[in-house]
Amino acid sequence: MGHEFDSQIAIERSADGRYAAELSAGWVVGGGVNGGYLLAVVGNALRAALPGKPDPIAISAYYLSAATPGPATVSVDVRRDGGSIATAAADLRQGDDTRITALATYGDLGRLGDDVRTTAEEPAMPPPDECVPNTMAPPEVRAIAPLMDRFDMRFHPDHIGWAVGQPSGNGVLSAWFRLVDGREPDPISLLMVVDALPPVTFDLGMPGWAPTLELTAHVRARPAPGWLKVRHATRNMAGGMFEEDCEVWDSTGRLVAQSRQLARQPRG
Amino acid sequence: MGHEFDSQIAIERSADGRYAAELSAGWVVGGGVNGGYLLAVVGNALRAALPGKPDPIAISAYYLSAATPGPATVSVDVRRDGGSIATAAADLRQGDDTRITALATYGDLGRLGDDVRTTAEEPAMPPPDECVPNTMAPPEVRAIAPLMDRFDMRFHPDHIGWAVGQPSGNGVLSAWFRLVDGREPDPISLLMVVDALPPVTFDLGMPGWAPTLELTAHVRARPAPGWLKVRHATRNMAGGMFEEDCEVWDSTGRLVAQSRQLARQPRG
Repeated sequence: MGHEFDSQIAIERSADGRYAAELSAGWVVGGGVNGGYLLAVVGNALRAALPGKPDPIAISAYYLSAATPGPATVSVDVRRDGGSIATAAADLRQGDDTRITALATYGDLGRLGDDVRTTAEEPAMPPPDECVPNTMAPPEVRAIAPLMDRFDMRFHPDHIGWAVGQPSGNGVLSAWFRLVDGREPDPISLLMVVDALPPVTFDLGMPGWAPTLELTAHVRARPAPGWLKVRHATRNMAGGMFEEDCEVWDSTGRLVAQSRQLARQPRG
Repeated sequence: MGHEFDSQIAIERSADGRYAAELSAGWVVGGGVNGGYLLAVVGNALRAALPGKPDPIAISAYYLSAATPGPATVSVDVRRDGGSIATAAADLRQGDDTRITALATYGDLGRLGDDVRTTAEEPAMPPPDECVPNTMAPPEVRAIAPLMDRFDMRFHPDHIGWAVGQPSGNGVLSAWFRLVDGREPDPISLLMVVDALPPVTFDLGMPGWAPTLELTAHVRARPAPGWLKVRHATRNMAGGMFEEDCEVWDSTGRLVAQSRQLARQPRG
């Protein structure tokens, strides 16, 4: 019972119809709180506001200002609720500042058809024990990125050269992923998973954090329990911005989430 | 002067601060008005509401109901305007019905840096004269898709098998694209271009229109005048939905827009 992650994304409906949350200091990275974790908090409030439609199918978040650990509220405005899906707007605020404004469509992934005609190929990864664990990160990195303590990540050895000053330059990162608290993945946690790895720009020789402007995630199926495979790639760095595509595959080899974000190139 | 497209996306600010538009019957396809055209109308209203930030950088649209030709209004709510970019919400309505709800970040693409480190490869296309023009579409197709009369499209011969009952099954479509009225591309028209080609599901042997649930476009640079190359691809059809990725390349070989939409599989 009682996984850490569930308590960290917990929301409570208040009398004014908003949802109160407590943003955890355990998700700090660099100067703010991890955007994927914030999206999971927003996603949890949306789930509460949309009875019978428990799963995010598509969610688009625009990041307006950096969040800090502590109290936050999520307001939800249902824009259309009919048939099998519902669309709502949601804002995550701290005091007078909006941190994230989002739109999302929810439904019941368990009620979708079983047909799968995926041409995408599951990323090839050595077994987790032959990959590079995040626990090998140097103490100075872990000090500014406490969120890494939430994860059991095993990086593909071919995509970890940046950690020793030898980025591949390909713009690709991949890793096995699970939460250290043992919580199994679900559609809400996938909203965090798509923004959990270091920025793909690490592999381009650009260390430093890359602020997200916009992130859209599509959750395509409920993930099976177990390890996830997460792959990030970028193909177009231009004008100080880059897109980061993310795929998440579950332990049965199913593509369960796809996301793309537009982020600012690290200044570092 | 006076290109047809500009008059079709024209908006007029009314006393209540909304923007009035007249959705053109020339953009009908199947049972509704083309979603890319609607996005350009929304994008035009956002441009008007955000002085000094003329260009869409990221826009996410959720399609709530099918639009019909005739009057519409766009309301814009500026959520944050500071520094070099601004983020706003916009709704396109007809009567009491919301057709599209959107979020967008605008800025000035002309002021971004010149650095380009794109690893994406420009799609190889035979010259336009060796491609298959949309004017070869059968009259019954053009009758239900008047929007095709707005376009000069030249399909890659390898991606047009569906037109003669021989879809490749790869889930890829590409074409040269320009507007027949001679209007040159700009960041607003790119919002239309990313949803102008037939659904990529045609190439999977699934004719019929594919309703968009959500579409996010990133405009990465102002396009040069001339032909655009547009490429659609899908990699994951599952549970009755598919993602459609679109790239738009300008006549100088620059990747000027990337988009992804989540759409329902055609029932046909």
